[in-house]
Order: sequence, then C-alpha cells, then structure tokens
Amino acid sequence: LIVKAAATLSSSLSVDAAIAWVDAAIHCLGVEDTALDGAQGRVLAEDIRANRAIPDKDCAALDGFAIEANTSLGASAYNPVEVPLRPVDAGDALPAGSDAVVPLDLAQPDERGHVELVEAAAPGDNVEQQGAVAASGAMLVLAGTQLAARHIGLLALAGLREVPVIRRPLVRIALMRPLRPGAWEDSNGPMVRAAIERDGGVVKELVTVERGRRAITNALIEMSVDIVLVIGGTGPGSDDQSADALAENGELAIHGVALRPGETTGLGRNSNSVPVVLLPGAPAACLWSYELFAGPAMRRLGGRDPALPYRSREMATARKIVSAIGMTEICPVRFGVGDTVEPAPSFAETGLMAAVNSDGFVIVPEGSEGYPQGAWVTVHLY
Amino acid sequence: LIVKAAATLSSSLSVDAAIAWVDAAIHCLGVEDTALDGAQGRVLAEDIRANRAIPDKDCAALDGFAIEANTSLGASAYNPVEVPLRPVDAGDALPAGSDAVVPLDLAQPDERGHVELVEAAAPGDNVEQQGAVAASGAMLVLAGTQLAARHIGLLALAGLREVPVIRRPLVRIALMRPLRPGAWEDSNGPMVRAAIERDGGVVKELVTVERGRRAITNALIEMSVDIVLVIGGTGPGSDDQSADALAENGELAIHGVALRPGETTGLGRNSNSVPVVLLPGAPAACLWSYELFAGPAMRRLGGRDPALPYRSREMATARKIVSAIGMTEICPVRFGVGDTVEPAPSFAETGLMAAVNSDGFVIVPEGSEGYPQGAWVTVHLY
Repeated sequence: LIVKAAATLSSSLSVDAAIAWVDAAIHCLGVEDTALDGAQGRVLAEDIRANRAIPDKDCAALDGFAIEANTSLGASAYNPVEVPLRPVDAGDALPAGSDAVVPLDLAQPDERGHVELVEAAAPGDNVEQQGAVAASGAMLVLAGTQLAARHIGLLALAGLREVPVIRRPLVRIALMRPLRPGAWEDSNGPMVRAAIERDGGVVKELVTVERGRRAITNALIEMSVDIVLVIGGTGPGSDDQSADALAENGELAIHGVALRPGETTGLGRNSNSVPVVLLPGAPAACLWSYELFAGPAMRRLGGRDPALPYRSREMATARKIVSAIGMTEICPVRFGVGDTVEPAPSFAETGLMAAVNSDGFVIVPEGSEGYPQGAWVTVHLY
Repeated sequence: LIVKAAATLSSSLSVDAAIAWVDAAIHCLGVEDTALDGAQGRVLAEDIRANRAIPDKDCAALDGFAIEANTSLGASAYNPVEVPLRPVDAGDALPAGSDAVVPLDLAQPDERGHVELVEAAAPGDNVEQQGAVAASGAMLVLAGTQLAARHIGLLALAGLREVPVIRRPLVRIALMRPLRPGAWEDSNGPMVRAAIERDGGVVKELVTVERGRRAITNALIEMSVDIVLVIGGTGPGSDDQSADALAENGELAIHGVALRPGETTGLGRNSNSVPVVLLPGAPAACLWSYELFAGPAMRRLGGRDPALPYRSREMATARKIVSAIGMTEICPVRFGVGDTVEPAPSFAETGLMAAVNSDGFVIVPEGSEGYPQGAWVTVHLY
C-alpha cells in the first residue's frame, strides 16, 4: 500500500492565482468559415462591414404605387389626381422617375393604366432609401459578437452566406474508472458534457481510464483536441495519480486550490502543450472546479466572455452567511422575503443537491468569514 | 393585374389579443425519453424523485482512514492512539464497524497494519451520511426544469441514464421566393432558423415556395411538423397570397396586428390543425413578428417559458421615446449616461440594423405615444 503525503495539497493556491493562470495560459483558437445558416451562437472572428449599400437602390417600403411626388401636389378626395399606374411591392426597387410610394388604400387604380391619388405625397414617402440600413463600408457586426438571429439576418441581408468564426474547442474528457460500480464518479461525465456544450465546446472523446499511471498518461497525451479534462484521481489518496501523471508528462502548474468545493483541482499542460484541467471526482467539487477553471478556459478558447455565465445581482442577506476563512467558498442561497437571500444547505452537507435546491450562489472570498445579516452581496442567479 | 383591397389589414388586432390567441391555441408537445448524456437544455417532462437514498450507504467524504470514533478518545500528539489501518478513498462506503474518517495528514500508518491518531474524532467526522444528498423518495428535479449541468449531474448520481423530456418542436419554414434575386427576403431563412434554434425548435424543412396560391397551399398542408412558419407574402400587395391560402386551407384566425414592425403578421392553423404563423417578408418585421408570436408559440410547444428570452430591467429615459398611438411599437434604445437609455435609430429608419446597433428595446404599448425624458421604462436587454 502506497500512502502519499497529503502535503501535496496542504499548500493550496488562491482561487485568484489559479484563475490568473487560466487567463494567461489559455488563448483564443483560430478561425474557420461556417455557413451563416446555422451560425447561431458562434463567435464572429472578424469585423464585418457592408461591401455595398443596403439596400443597394431606393426601394418601396410597403406595397403600393410608385409615383413622382410632385405630380401629386394638391391631390385630395375632392380633387383626385390621376398618375400612371406603377404598382410596387415592399422591397422592390423604385421604377425610374418615381421618388415616393402611395399605399394601396390611398389610391384607386382604374382599368386604363392609371391610378387616382387622393392625398399629396412628399419625395421619399414610404421609400427605403439606398443605404438606409447600411452605407457601403459601414460596420455591420463587430468581431467577438456571439451571433444571434438579428446579426445573422443583417449579415444575410448584406449578401453573406459564410462568416469567419472562432473554432469551437474540441474536448477530450478522461474519466477515471469509478472505484466501485455505481459510485459517484459516474455522474460526472454527463454533467461535464452539459457544461461544455453550454460553453460552446464539443466533446470529441469521452474515455474511461483505468486508475494506473500508464493509463492516465495515455489519456493525457493528446494532440487532436484543444483541451483535456481529467475527472477524478486528483486527491491525496492511494488511487489518485492524475496529478503525478501530468507532472511526469507535461507541466503540473497548479495542484490544490483554496476552493470549497473543488480543493483538489489541478491545472497544467500535457507534453504537447495542450491545456489540461484536473477536476475532482466528488460531484459537487467537479462542478465548481469546472465552473471556476475549466469553464473560463473553454470560453476563452472559443472566443467567448470568460466570466461566469450567470446573471448576478446585488442583494441583501436575510440571515448571515458563514464561510471558512482561508478558502474561497461557494455558498448556495435561496430567495428570502422581499429582495433578500438566505443561505441554503451547503455543498458539504448535501453535495450536488445544494446546486439544485437553491436559487443561486454567493462566492465568499478566502479573506472573508462570510457576511452578517443585512450585508449586500453579489448573488449569481441560476 | 389583381389589386386587393387594403381593407384586409386596416382593422389590425391588438398585440395583446394576438398573444392571447397564441397562449390559448398552442399547447405543450408530448413526452419522449432522451439520454441524460446530451440532455442539456431539454425540458424535463415529469418530476423526478430519488428511487434510493443518495448516497445509499455512509461514505467517506475524503481520502483517509476509517475508524470507530470512540477508539480515538484522548488521542493527541503527546498521546497517539493506535487503531487498525483501514484506508478509504473519498466516495467509498465506510467499512463495517467504522463511523468516522481521519484525513491522511492527521494519521501515520505503520508497517504493521495500524495507524496512529494524533487527534480525537467524533462519530460522523468526514462521513457523507446515507441520504445526505437525497433521501429515498425525495424530489430531485421538478417537471418543467430546463436541464443544466447541475441537474444532469444530480440525475446521473441518482442512477438515471435516460430522462422523460418534452419533444422538441419540429418546424417547417416556407419561404416565399424573393421577387427579385438578392432581395431582402433571402435573409429571413437564416435569421428565423437561428431564432428557432435558440428557442429549442428543430427546423425539419426549409422550402422556398413560388408565389402562387397552389404552391403556398402545398407548403401549408403539412402533418409531420408541429408548426409551420410562412415567411413573406403576408401584405396587401398583388403577390401576397399567404393569408388567403391559409384562409382557404385551414383557419386564418388573425391577419393584421397593431405591431410596428410586424403589422402584416398572420396566425392560424392548417387543415390538419397544425399551427401556422405568417411572418412578414420585410426583415425587421419578420424578426419582430417571430419574437412576439412565433417565438412564444415555439417555446410553448417545447414546454419552455413563453416570455421573451431577454433579461429586462427598469431604466430611466435620458431623452423622450416617441411612438405612434394605436400601434405597439418596438423602440430600439442605447445605454446613455449613468443608468439611462435613449432612443436609437428606429426600425422604420434603418431596418434590421436597428436591432444590431442598439443595446436593447422598449415595447411601447398601443395606448401610449411614448415616454417623456426621465420616465422609468422596462428595457429588454440584448
């Protein structure tokens, strides 16, 4: 029996220092072209400007009749003015010699190719001017924008069919084989896959790894993905060899972070310089290690905002929130009376249930023992 | 030349009445089982309770040594107590006869199968009690929950591999053929697809339809999808036959809504009772007709919250917002100084650009002419 010294983990790094490592070590991936039809959620890699005016001609803004406005001067119900019949549909270019559009209900066409106007029109009435949406060369969508329907519509309107976007990060998940069937490690694969998909990553491989040094090493040596997440085997126990395997086959930059839950997190690179995050096997620790380190890494790779993908709001505490000094602690909270929050059962007490049976969480920094009743805290909302 | 009376659209229905039609007519789809691994974003169809305690036995909460706590009474650095060596890893069931776990760094194993304790432990120390996450029968995740990583982790921990979810709505998009090549109708397909995907729908078919009654009718008669979106041909013009085709082949419940942009929206059902939304062909009108009517329909079908999928916040207006009385108007706004918003160029002025070149929008109801400077308004944020 080999029992490793627990000393490996007794000198935990601060969460801020570990996040700083991620920020410095993980860079945005390269660019690929993708079809605009299907680009929802992708991150635009370059500024896109209009290569022609939109619209490229003066157009009818609604269905009606194109007229030369000055021919309508003086028109009224008592003095209808007859002009040539030139029907246009919304979006049609104005015919030559016309500069306004009269709506269908303000004109009566006759059988002889004319239309009677009962109201005067001004030049430009119901016309979408050339370049009204964008002049030629105008900025359409900025690099870094996560494309939503409105951006995609505008880019399609500009004539684009493909757009340059940041590549989606390809991920290998290496899941330590559970020590016994049905053990909690089993739940981590689907959970981490869901978080990766939320963050725009693609799980290229999910492999279950035997708990031996050689098997872990094989799982680490990986060139065809952008990041490796090892789940489990991060602790000080005899069957925990993820950190040692990484140290021997690359760089174990950080092992042990002052985060609760998530203390046995590791960060580094394999021998091919692919970033590696070691996530604890205990489910709640795995979740928070992902959220604080792997998630920002994933979002950085994909060109997204690395910040936590939860809305946050300042709220008052209805009861005090207690946290251990020296550890950054994720404290689940529930909504209280009015605009307040109160502590919900902790991750130490109820494990992963604490993330489901709560309305959000407060991150209490390591220098704090928590917050008194009535304090204002930043609540991250689920 | 057939010129239809514009009267069809002059009696527009209020936006509220049109939304009420959607609320009453569109129902949540049925249930299907899906693999938990990949269920991110799906809507849970039934309450899920624990069918056994989680964990199902008392377990070690960390790597260490299992002990019977009362054997450690009086242990200290000056008076180490020797107990049998029973190493456990985090997540292991406690061996029979043990009721606490001592961390690795508080005990020294020797070569003779014993471990020396230098601190007394209490029963339950570092033990995750049977049922600590959930008692047998306890509620895990409520029906209607849109599954995120934390829910998926908890359900996996409970032993589930599949979950019952609401079916994703299957959508047919029938896009009127543009009146001229490169016309703005072309941009609507990718835009609407993006919005459908955001709302959890699946575009089963996108067909381009000739602008004749027969072609539109063929596009409407559809049994294998859950909703049909017809884009274009909704106006009063001679080439606009979407509404008439629906009226003849099903039910045109609503045509013409007091919404700007989006006035020529239509709502109804085809002859197979499949809901149909007629979206205007002008891009900005298409977008807002989708957002206010097709989007809520899509989200209702899929069991999601039908409300607009944008955060909203009360903010003060830095300049007055002007809107036409009698029309619900979507007014783009930009952030001003401090916590204020000011009007951005309108959809009438700059088309779809107004949705990209702004920070959000205010929905001014039809009874209002807008808001004076300094008024508090609900801003929907992109």
